[in-house]
Amino acid sequence: MEKITYNSWSNNYKTPFGALKVDSQVVFTINCQLPAIHAVYLMIHKDFGQSFQIEMEAVKEGNYQTTFELSEGNGLYFYYFKIDYPLNNHVETLYYGNNRYQLGGLGETYYEIEDIKQYQLTSYLYDDPAPEWYRSGVAYQIFVDRFYNGNEKGIVSHPKKNSFIYASPEDDPVYLKDEIGDIMRWEFFGGNLKGIIQKLPYLANLGITILYLNPIFEARSNHKYDTGDFLKIDPMFGDEAIFKELIEQARTLGIHIILDGVFNHTGADSRYFNRYGTYDDLGAYQSRESEYADWYTFDQFPEEYQSWWGIKDVPTLNKETPAVQNFIYAGKDSVIRTWSKLGLGGWRIDVADELSDSFLAGIRKALEETIAEPVLIGEVWEDASNKIAYEQRRHYLEGGMLHGAMNYPFREIIIGVLNHTITTKEAALRSMHLKENYPPEAFKNNFNNIGTHDTARILTAVQNNVPALKQALALLFALPGIPCLYYGDEAGVEGGEDPANRKMFPWGRENKTIQSYAYEWIALRREEAALQEGDYYAFSTRKVLGIVRYLSEEEYLVLLINVSDQEVTFTTKETTTDYSFDIQAFLTKQGLAEKTIPAQGIQVIKKSR
Amino acid sequence: MEKITYNSWSNNYKTPFGALKVDSQVVFTINCQLPAIHAVYLMIHKDFGQSFQIEMEAVKEGNYQTTFELSEGNGLYFYYFKIDYPLNNHVETLYYGNNRYQLGGLGETYYEIEDIKQYQLTSYLYDDPAPEWYRSGVAYQIFVDRFYNGNEKGIVSHPKKNSFIYASPEDDPVYLKDEIGDIMRWEFFGGNLKGIIQKLPYLANLGITILYLNPIFEARSNHKYDTGDFLKIDPMFGDEAIFKELIEQARTLGIHIILDGVFNHTGADSRYFNRYGTYDDLGAYQSRESEYADWYTFDQFPEEYQSWWGIKDVPTLNKETPAVQNFIYAGKDSVIRTWSKLGLGGWRIDVADELSDSFLAGIRKALEETIAEPVLIGEVWEDASNKIAYEQRRHYLEGGMLHGAMNYPFREIIIGVLNHTITTKEAALRSMHLKENYPPEAFKNNFNNIGTHDTARILTAVQNNVPALKQALALLFALPGIPCLYYGDEAGVEGGEDPANRKMFPWGRENKTIQSYAYEWIALRREEAALQEGDYYAFSTRKVLGIVRYLSEEEYLVLLINVSDQEVTFTTKETTTDYSFDIQAFLTKQGLAEKTIPAQGIQVIKKSR
Repeated sequence: MEKITYNSWSNNYKTPFGALKVDSQVVFTINCQLPAIHAVYLMIHKDFGQSFQIEMEAVKEGNYQTTFELSEGNGLYFYYFKIDYPLNNHVETLYYGNNRYQLGGLGETYYEIEDIKQYQLTSYLYDDPAPEWYRSGVAYQIFVDRFYNGNEKGIVSHPKKNSFIYASPEDDPVYLKDEIGDIMRWEFFGGNLKGIIQKLPYLANLGITILYLNPIFEARSNHKYDTGDFLKIDPMFGDEAIFKELIEQARTLGIHIILDGVFNHTGADSRYFNRYGTYDDLGAYQSRESEYADWYTFDQFPEEYQSWWGIKDVPTLNKETPAVQNFIYAGKDSVIRTWSKLGLGGWRIDVADELSDSFLAGIRKALEETIAEPVLIGEVWEDASNKIAYEQRRHYLEGGMLHGAMNYPFREIIIGVLNHTITTKEAALRSMHLKENYPPEAFKNNFNNIGTHDTARILTAVQNNVPALKQALALLFALPGIPCLYYGDEAGVEGGEDPANRKMFPWGRENKTIQSYAYEWIALRREEAALQEGDYYAFSTRKVLGIVRYLSEEEYLVLLINVSDQEVTFTTKETTTDYSFDIQAFLTKQGLAEKTIPAQGIQVIKKSR
Repeated sequence: MEKITYNSWSNNYKTPFGALKVDSQVVFTINCQLPAIHAVYLMIHKDFGQSFQIEMEAVKEGNYQTTFELSEGNGLYFYYFKIDYPLNNHVETLYYGNNRYQLGGLGETYYEIEDIKQYQLTSYLYDDPAPEWYRSGVAYQIFVDRFYNGNEKGIVSHPKKNSFIYASPEDDPVYLKDEIGDIMRWEFFGGNLKGIIQKLPYLANLGITILYLNPIFEARSNHKYDTGDFLKIDPMFGDEAIFKELIEQARTLGIHIILDGVFNHTGADSRYFNRYGTYDDLGAYQSRESEYADWYTFDQFPEEYQSWWGIKDVPTLNKETPAVQNFIYAGKDSVIRTWSKLGLGGWRIDVADELSDSFLAGIRKALEETIAEPVLIGEVWEDASNKIAYEQRRHYLEGGMLHGAMNYPFREIIIGVLNHTITTKEAALRSMHLKENYPPEAFKNNFNNIGTHDTARILTAVQNNVPALKQALALLFALPGIPCLYYGDEAGVEGGEDPANRKMFPWGRENKTIQSYAYEWIALRREEAALQEGDYYAFSTRKVLGIVRYLSEEEYLVLLINVSDQEVTFTTKETTTDYSFDIQAFLTKQGLAEKTIPAQGIQVIKKSR
């Protein structure tokens, strides 16, 4: 029978590895063990573009090869192989494509054209590494209302009319909804910017160098994704003077601040839409004569309007409107410029995949013009290299837009393998697949997490298993990309999905075991250049997931995670590797041919300069 | 045709007027204008007892008379008249009974026995006047969580786990319910006893002499009708020391305090039932071995138990259990004795009509043994003279139990006539009917209101019509019984039914017009003996409701209320009166034969010593 082999992760088959700059050349080699062959073709097409059928050249021992130039501009290519061979006096056809899981690496043979899965090849404009302070940093996400109230005696500043304050910081968060499921009243714990200022020494001591704050501009809700006024700090959180003080005190401690930019929509209760007449401006909802009239899209004025996911409380901004672009980024006093120039580190863009490429490029440009060494990251939930939103392929990671994306796919892999819903092998392969798809600098720019305000807490996600939580932390800090801790995860806070994941930080009631462990890993991450910039390879045996971060023979780190609840002996020769980097040889050389790992254990083997 | 006349309100027909002591004699006279009469009978029966048919004696001009002795003990008698007369050689029968509205006074003729409405005659054990401090007083009801927070900076004392604090005292109260309608979290404004202490000068200046506090004992809710511990002040409200200070400072200002005694049920979350294991005692819900096991009635242990109106959060106390009786009143350290001896004025008994007569008598006895001049009033929503609850006629107003009842029927009359849902005539008649039914001292002991924590606010009840609110206040202070203002009604607070009627007192935002008017009437009430003790008569013309409070020709007060929105001329001769007191003669003598009253106007004509 036929035996055909291609592996997108091995230099023997595709070189160079992974995503490539526009106009680079790629050499594809496929090995076809068939009694006779008529012709082998590389079948490749540019995403939403040109298709090519290129006959490959027979080289040796059944290898067919061709060199392809990525001359179609940035974006994605998809490819597979077609093999024509003679059978009983006619030409028969076979196909070889990506494996059925579409993970890249080793593929498989297909007999019917409609079954074929294709390989992705990402072509990007240029390397766009994030600034060094970001790349070497450790981040911490704060949901401001839930972190710390810095006022005397826990007084809540400027509480909102018809809202509630939790009676105690130990209370469980809850949504207060009416009979039809709408929010009846918003509830607050009263955390504020003063509280963050007071806790900066805690964060600095923990080793944090980047603070990512959930939105802080005036809004009716506790989460503030329903912006009321982009140019005003929410009075419950503080004011511009307090925010400046936070930025300055943070900088003194080596901490950069990243704000949450929510530009896809505003609150209905905003200066711009002004549904409830809260603001003195004439809002788009109030009159067609409003200066904001074309900021929104009304299907029927004023009650029917476009809104994020159909939620009437957050009408969608019309981002093609020049006035919106000017207001958000392009103008001299745009939102981006106004706040950035106070000394921000950068922005995290909410629902980045719902903004157009040009809008994101505009934000990036304004940011670069305003501050030195800014970072721009975006919220994307899936593999951000190939996201299609509103029927458009998104190019935000291909240069000049986002530096990186929130890495939810890594979180899924970590939780999946620790909960045994995916195997160690699948975990390794899926992580390598992301490495293959993302432009290499974007992959290292990604903002990694094991939990955010939009997910269950990591401790709850791993079913309150503390050893598993430690493994999750180890993975978060060992994987490529910038690790970001969700406030309180280092203190052992539990909680399922929103709102349970938004408890008040348990000051005085922290889980010290988890906290110490987080300290250790943060320190390691900041000390080891290999963890920040090392090349990434994953491998596995049946019970063990392994990670290599490799800079050189003198500087590397190997992490072995025993995901089972029994002691196991990790044996290098059981790992399957087919990368250009020879993992088995490397591990054997480092004396890791065999290694005993306790139940749910973590082993770190490293070499530093 | 026949013309028969009887009027229970006129001494010409029934003497003496109204309710009478046991063993008194009553003279009934009925006037029958028929061509011929065979016999006239008084048909009278004791409630749930003996029936009597007494032939009446022909006296003069068609009058038939009999004297009846109330020798059947205390309770109610019901009566009507039967007239046999000859027609075409056989005996025909007619009946005369109470009018179809059952209001007493002038009755009507009935032709069929099953149609007859009977008159009520209340027979009570002895006159049981409340103490003078109460009878001459003006009361003020405080829902403690909603009055004033006396802590520095509005800090809330001892907030309860998983509860909410309203963000601002101006917020609208709301219940936070889950999907099945149960309370999800309790919400608090944070009012407390310290707050009341700080506002005592305000209350004293207003002229208040009695403070009725909604429950103050430990309980999970904000209303505290779900008692958790009868022997502990709720920590959010204060503690025993603060309560003592409140009592003492109030006394210094001439103010007596009345507590709300909730003895029909406890909270499920109580020391006694302990459904949630909150208390260290072994509760009835927790074990059949609990010392409180027989305090409750389980249909199926422990999930099925008797509770107030089927609300599982408030299991009913088994009031026949001696241990419950000892704990609540009989024992040396009973709830009644423990708190009363701190210097209380008395108690208001919650759902008094659900407690047995003997239980109420026990409370009264314990109270009399503990303090001098106590008062005991009860919550009853209907005419309290004839209430049947759980198939038992209630005798709590007939001596030795309650001094009086909360007078919701007066509130209904006041709001009804001001909203024109009843006529001025019906208002007058209904109020006279209550006077007839209640033992005379009980009638003057009643605790009158135009709003409580269980009703809409008076301003809202009269549709935000301030002139109507003033008329309601005038009636509240002019009617017999002790006027009780619901906190904030004097400040113009609005609000529909619970929870809208439980807003925070609007300190600094009071309606000064309403407040001044309340001041005036409180002062008048306290100055005028006629308003406190004067005999009561009501009268009406088409647009005017009139009230007389009469002590003597030298001491009386007449109140005229024009309920229409046009100026009217009140004309005495248009009033219908058929009382032993000749209203027309009295008014004419006082120069009130005619009086012009502005639209929605109020006229007070008085003579004082």
